[in-house]
Amino acid sequence: MRTSREFFATRTVAEALAGFRPGRRTAPETVALDGALHRVPAAAVSAPAALPGFARATVDGYAVRAADTYGASEGLPAYLEVTGSVRMGTAAEVAVGRGTVVVMPTGGVLPPGADAVVMVEYTQETMPGTIEVVRPVAPGDGLVRADEDAAPGAELVPAGRPLRAQDLGMLAGAGVTSVKVHARPVVTVLSTGDEVVPPGTASLRPGQVRDATASALTALVRQAGGEPYAGGIVPDDAGALHAAMRAALERSDLVVVSAGSSVGARDQTAAAVAGLGEPGIWCHGLALRPGKPTLLAECAGVPVVGLPGNPLSALVVFRLVGIPLLWRVGGCTAPPPEPVARASLGREVASAAGRLDVVQVRLRDGVATPLYGASALLSILVAADGYLVVPEEATGLPAGTEVEVTLYQ
Amino acid sequence: MRTSREFFATRTVAEALAGFRPGRRTAPETVALDGALHRVPAAAVSAPAALPGFARATVDGYAVRAADTYGASEGLPAYLEVTGSVRMGTAAEVAVGRGTVVVMPTGGVLPPGADAVVMVEYTQETMPGTIEVVRPVAPGDGLVRADEDAAPGAELVPAGRPLRAQDLGMLAGAGVTSVKVHARPVVTVLSTGDEVVPPGTASLRPGQVRDATASALTALVRQAGGEPYAGGIVPDDAGALHAAMRAALERSDLVVVSAGSSVGARDQTAAAVAGLGEPGIWCHGLALRPGKPTLLAECAGVPVVGLPGNPLSALVVFRLVGIPLLWRVGGCTAPPPEPVARASLGREVASAAGRLDVVQVRLRDGVATPLYGASALLSILVAADGYLVVPEEATGLPAGTEVEVTLYQ
Repeated sequence: MRTSREFFATRTVAEALAGFRPGRRTAPETVALDGALHRVPAAAVSAPAALPGFARATVDGYAVRAADTYGASEGLPAYLEVTGSVRMGTAAEVAVGRGTVVVMPTGGVLPPGADAVVMVEYTQETMPGTIEVVRPVAPGDGLVRADEDAAPGAELVPAGRPLRAQDLGMLAGAGVTSVKVHARPVVTVLSTGDEVVPPGTASLRPGQVRDATASALTALVRQAGGEPYAGGIVPDDAGALHAAMRAALERSDLVVVSAGSSVGARDQTAAAVAGLGEPGIWCHGLALRPGKPTLLAECAGVPVVGLPGNPLSALVVFRLVGIPLLWRVGGCTAPPPEPVARASLGREVASAAGRLDVVQVRLRDGVATPLYGASALLSILVAADGYLVVPEEATGLPAGTEVEVTLYQ
Repeated sequence: MRTSREFFATRTVAEALAGFRPGRRTAPETVALDGALHRVPAAAVSAPAALPGFARATVDGYAVRAADTYGASEGLPAYLEVTGSVRMGTAAEVAVGRGTVVVMPTGGVLPPGADAVVMVEYTQETMPGTIEVVRPVAPGDGLVRADEDAAPGAELVPAGRPLRAQDLGMLAGAGVTSVKVHARPVVTVLSTGDEVVPPGTASLRPGQVRDATASALTALVRQAGGEPYAGGIVPDDAGALHAAMRAALERSDLVVVSAGSSVGARDQTAAAVAGLGEPGIWCHGLALRPGKPTLLAECAGVPVVGLPGNPLSALVVFRLVGIPLLWRVGGCTAPPPEPVARASLGREVASAAGRLDVVQVRLRDGVATPLYGASALLSILVAADGYLVVPEEATGLPAGTEVEVTLYQ
């Protein structure tokens, strides 16, 4: 019989991403367009009416009946009579008939009777009120249809993809000034460890360290569209952590615990998760370096990520598995693209098969130089321009390998 | 003699980026760390003290004098006496002497006398109070120095690079809880055109269009770290635009005018710029498609970007030349990386030599398919995953060309 420890065997990152899929989703809320950048639509938004709503000139020139220009050339121009002009932002007051044209500004309303706009460059005013047209146009030339940007009911923006600048422009153009989006997932960030004190602590006692991880995690949560909640620092005490997590579960869509670095602290998150609700622990250990002592759990419908105590490891894990969870809970099915760069590996990287290695690199002139330190300190992450991943099946990468670097932003 | 029109000849985008370099910079302001994500430090921040501040174990094990382990092996272990243990977050109470060790948790303070930590995996407690060490350690093994993450006065984060999550973590760890950053550049977004009405306008008269460009520009300004100011819609009237721009210059670090699409509106921004302050117009026309009718000017120390009337063109130009200006004014010398993807061009793209072509593409399975429309409508930008650039020297790209696509986010 397997013990519970064996049951929670180490999983690969790919298994975690594919297999740990909590069903929680944040509720929809309505936000004004001005505050909707990067928010995630809870449903596709449809065009309430045709866009632009009227046939519109796309060039400066003359509204014509295309048939009146057939066969026109430099040698044999078509002579047409100018009977009026269109003013921007108003309906056309004059119709176009056989042999007549109306002066059109770009963006103006196509007058009744016209089916094309001939560019001013292909015309000449030979005498007041008469133009020569030296090139024929076909129906539809020089204009957009009334429903060319969007037909009524057409999808303006899809559900699940964070709204980009042009999406907001499209919605504004269609008169949609608010949009139903998933609420930002509330992510409680808890730190544990008797040695950990708030960043604002003026002077430290020997052995104390300021909480670096929480500030970085809070920023990552915000960057990924979440609403961070500062859960504070919990001492290395099972009861205190259990109580803090119980409170966090009640208010959160995702709970992130960065463990203390001591030996006892490592298993403490797992112990605290027990009894906080089903289905409990999904995995305890990732085949990842750095980041092995990672815990994934779901308690009472809320996903919980237990991070390693080392700040660098914690941030690596949160980027790899925490942010995808945050997106999922926030209804984001088409995550924003990450900046990447191709580079040549500056020197050999060792790795063990069966384990994903995340290597911090500095990028200069197309060369990615791995950064290592005594024990993976935060200064390495600050010096890094990005990271590369050595896949599970590789046992290392020789210098000169072409690698893909995910860039920090 | 050249006329003023010839003098403001068309420039390339590269010339504009290299040559139009207004000296304006926003003033520094101090912000709390919690609100400093992606803000641009006005000066490098130095470590007020060593980090972590004490020699610290990076493994669980025993603090030792390395010399006591020399020559230790499985066959001939070193026997050492356990004289105490270190508690997390407190100073070591027991020193390590010859032949003695102290129990160390990861992250604990190295006791006086010790110069290494031997991992618990390479030890065995043979009887209470005595351990065998089966591998030698060198001085410095299993620990980080007191100044390993940062020496006092060392640069924690550089000036000019937007703060990333890990930078905030580093600052928090060093006890730096506020940071001097460049103020967000105030960018006034003005729309012009008699046909343009606010997005919230419930029903339109024929010929009217809702202002799509301003909403999209506002979002791009915010995304790039600026503080957008809604300058509203100005009618096609030289005096009104002049007055609106004068007011905008007073409050802004950058003024962006999206022109109306009519023939008259196109030169109106140039006319309005006259008399608003030196040095005035820098260029009027970019060798860019879409985006030719672009104006760059500097009036009374404030850069002004005049954008084409077409929303898609306006957004293309603002991404290419407006955002780099915004970064510059906001003190950002190391702009954040943009997401890009390599792809195979799905079909031929035509281009004219001497002109930069920006082509919107849809990206699926590594194939970039160009998206074209009757007249470059906003719906094309919404359908696009990114864009590719056909350089000035190229006369087109054949299908199958490997291209770099800049991805929208």
